[in-house]
Amino acid sequence: MSLLDGTEPGADGVRALVQRAVELRSGAAPRQFPGRSVGAVFFNPSLRTRTSLEAACARLGAHPICIHPGTDAWAWEMTSGAVMDGATAEHIDEAVPVLASYVDVLAVRSFARLTDAAEDRADPVLAGFVARSKVPVVNLESAMWHPLQGLADTATWSEKLGPDLTGRRLVLTWAPHPRALPAAVPNQVLLSAALMGMDVTVAHPEGFDLDPDVVARASALAAAGGGGVTVRHDREALADAEVVVAKSWSGFSGYADRDGEARRRAGLASWRVDAADLPASAGFMHCLPVRRNVVVADAVLDGPGSWVQLEAAYRLWTAAAVLESLLGDGW
Amino acid sequence: MSLLDGTEPGADGVRALVQRAVELRSGAAPRQFPGRSVGAVFFNPSLRTRTSLEAACARLGAHPICIHPGTDAWAWEMTSGAVMDGATAEHIDEAVPVLASYVDVLAVRSFARLTDAAEDRADPVLAGFVARSKVPVVNLESAMWHPLQGLADTATWSEKLGPDLTGRRLVLTWAPHPRALPAAVPNQVLLSAALMGMDVTVAHPEGFDLDPDVVARASALAAAGGGGVTVRHDREALADAEVVVAKSWSGFSGYADRDGEARRRAGLASWRVDAADLPASAGFMHCLPVRRNVVVADAVLDGPGSWVQLEAAYRLWTAAAVLESLLGDGW
Amino acid sequence: MSLLDGTEPGADGVRALVQRAVELRSGAAPRQFPGRSVGAVFFNPSLRTRTSLEAACARLGAHPICIHPGTDAWAWEMTSGAVMDGATAEHIDEAVPVLASYVDVLAVRSFARLTDAAEDRADPVLAGFVARSKVPVVNLESAMWHPLQGLADTATWSEKLGPDLTGRRLVLTWAPHPRALPAAVPNQVLLSAALMGMDVTVAHPEGFDLDPDVVARASALAAAGGGGVTVRHDREALADAEVVVAKSWSGFSGYADRDGEARRRAGLASWRVDAADLPASAGFMHCLPVRRNVVVADAVLDGPGSWVQLEAAYRLWTAAAVLESLLGDGW
Repeated sequence: MSLLDGTEPGADGVRALVQRAVELRSGAAPRQFPGRSVGAVFFNPSLRTRTSLEAACARLGAHPICIHPGTDAWAWEMTSGAVMDGATAEHIDEAVPVLASYVDVLAVRSFARLTDAAEDRADPVLAGFVARSKVPVVNLESAMWHPLQGLADTATWSEKLGPDLTGRRLVLTWAPHPRALPAAVPNQVLLSAALMGMDVTVAHPEGFDLDPDVVARASALAAAGGGGVTVRHDREALADAEVVVAKSWSGFSGYADRDGEARRRAGLASWRVDAADLPASAGFMHCLPVRRNVVVADAVLDGPGSWVQLEAAYRLWTAAAVLESLLGDGW
Repeated sequence: MSLLDGTEPGADGVRALVQRAVELRSGAAPRQFPGRSVGAVFFNPSLRTRTSLEAACARLGAHPICIHPGTDAWAWEMTSGAVMDGATAEHIDEAVPVLASYVDVLAVRSFARLTDAAEDRADPVLAGFVARSKVPVVNLESAMWHPLQGLADTATWSEKLGPDLTGRRLVLTWAPHPRALPAAVPNQVLLSAALMGMDVTVAHPEGFDLDPDVVARASALAAAGGGGVTVRHDREALADAEVVVAKSWSGFSGYADRDGEARRRAGLASWRVDAADLPASAGFMHCLPVRRNVVVADAVLDGPGSWVQLEAAYRLWTAAAVLESLLGDGW
Repeated sequence: MSLLDGTEPGADGVRALVQRAVELRSGAAPRQFPGRSVGAVFFNPSLRTRTSLEAACARLGAHPICIHPGTDAWAWEMTSGAVMDGATAEHIDEAVPVLASYVDVLAVRSFARLTDAAEDRADPVLAGFVARSKVPVVNLESAMWHPLQGLADTATWSEKLGPDLTGRRLVLTWAPHPRALPAAVPNQVLLSAALMGMDVTVAHPEGFDLDPDVVARASALAAAGGGGVTVRHDREALADAEVVVAKSWSGFSGYADRDGEARRRAGLASWRVDAADLPASAGFMHCLPVRRNVVVADAVLDGPGSWVQLEAAYRLWTAAAVLESLLGDGW
């Protein structure tokens, strides 16, 4: 039992986790797991994910152990059969089973490298953990997915729009950013919203497409749940949105020409989300951290329609609900 | 309720915290706060402060979460209205409210930058936390103050000189150092001693003045408590001191000419504290870390009048007393 | 009471710790030490040691505090009498007593520098901790020893070969590596096996000798326990081994000519451990991390005779057994 793309508990299981997160947030006593440990391996920086995971462990009486390979631990080799005469000192073949023998849940953050589409699609580090761990694995954002973010987003949608999310209008909009970014978060928003049967519009400029396999999977999932997925290359859907989720990402076709994408991105500053772009009644969400006044204007982030703090706050309670399940009796 | 400059509990409140620290050090059972978390954001290195905070949390059954922006977390933007197209990825506007939603107490260390007097006086990072946090904020050393150090110092003075500190003779002496250092610690020594009504002499070379507003505030506080503050540009007061606190700091007037100050500092090695400088009966204190044989001679640090280890040891117990209050019923 | 080279509990004490580790691994309830802290200072990277120490603390209800001088804390000065006008800001004279006043057990990792044989033999950082700490010190790998590894190795030998290890045939073989490595681990394997009265053969190329004092001490210990120590400059003993422990190390005579040693090492790739080198019945061990296909072939590490995961897994339980003793009633 692991949490890799957030669909593992199923739609009803996700609703149950959200319900439990609401209970915990309202003061329900969390289950206690004294003596238990959660290992969390960070190949990339983190603020919300690590802090909420640690605070969730504290609520459950469990102990978090955070590992930063290359900083406080050895650099890892990921390639099978490697002759390790270079910079890496520790092979994932040893490291993961060893860690799994010390802890009760093993979590990992490893972003996309954005150099090889097939490699990122295979989500190699996350898959490497799953293949080698005897304890449940929690994805803290991989090349492809960010399921704890998806659960917090789902909790936010449920609180703001009501428990039945079928057909509710969510727009996932591409946004400008100084750097090429992975698509794990937009993939996850799309998948999580689809799982709830929402009516999702993905809005992005030409060339900043999401992985077509992800879009197809989400479309099928949404259709099964009473919703749908539409892709547009303009921002008109924002005007009719109930919730707008903004995020920058690099295009799936951008793997072929990262420099060209960077040039095109430089001309797309107008995709910044401004207050005039969405209805006063719509909620605005972003996973954070967010580049203020590049991705989105201060007026939106600080305005009455901003749900980003609620979204971030749910990270604690959804993580606690997930750990209760993984340390306890499962979904 | 926060602890920012150490005066928040008032003089009687400080005495009560010191008394509680003594009880805890003597083996009294600390109050327990299972499931609670203390978040601590470090923009600068720390040994005593972080370790004593973590150990204090452990005594109280609470969980510490330490964050090092730029190392294990994103670099923070502090400027309102910034267009974040540069190196900073996370705005304090998001980060602090998010952290405050995960933890029960939020602590922060952020030293003075020493480039702009008005900026340092405004203590912008600490003030930024206070303005954005819904949970109590603890200052782990800011541009201006180091209140947990002040409490540990007060506990040390009380143990060594007796509970009534009115009129007891403390000399805060400037000391040499290879680098320009912030004045948070000398400011705090001055303020904490003044709050206890001590008779404080600040001894420093010309040009290494403390912030006149801090001196004026301390003078008024000391006078109200039965003590006083004197500033001298020689070291004669050391000969009559009951306790000598040494620290290097950059002058408030040095903001205008940091290079000139560095040249003057290079000629002031004789301000090093040597055994002959203070009476055999006097105690010697320093917040640590200390540059041995630059700030103070080994013979003083290792001699019978050295109180630096007691001073450091009280960091644990005063931090525990503060957290008991902040997690519990207040001052 | 400290754990420095692993012989402190004596042979019977080690057997008792191993027995306790087995019990804990089998589900026995660990003793609880709420409110207690273990401080761990890492001057070098760590995966297994830190993670198993943290997880062991969690099992015991104690709190681990990890410190990385130069990263999250000040750089340390180790030289007595130093005039600290350079890069180091914190003297071990202050740091260790201060930490010892906050925590209940103080642990430290500090590798050999490999520049001065006399310095490494004196194990200066570990010895510096012991001389300045009022609480028990645990060696997390020093210039000379790695006792927690030795205990995990002993537990592995006991599980695989039976509780009476007298005369059992262990071969400690030198192995290739791109870098000159300290000898703490081979020293420890030798000493721990000798303490159990095993029949130990050390196999290494000419010029890659272990410290003769260590070999002499282990020989005496082994003889007293019914075993012995043999040193060979070929690999013939592997063919008759019951357990093979591989590790690269720099030669004791290599202190005189590190460059020459590096040239000789480059020609010794054939000392890599391959499946054909050891009997099918023999166990293979390595402390990890291991350079795959340089130190040892994948076929050995991934084969049925590989005990490296069991060896690593015992790190948790032997650490827990040690902490139970150090926080409790001693050996």
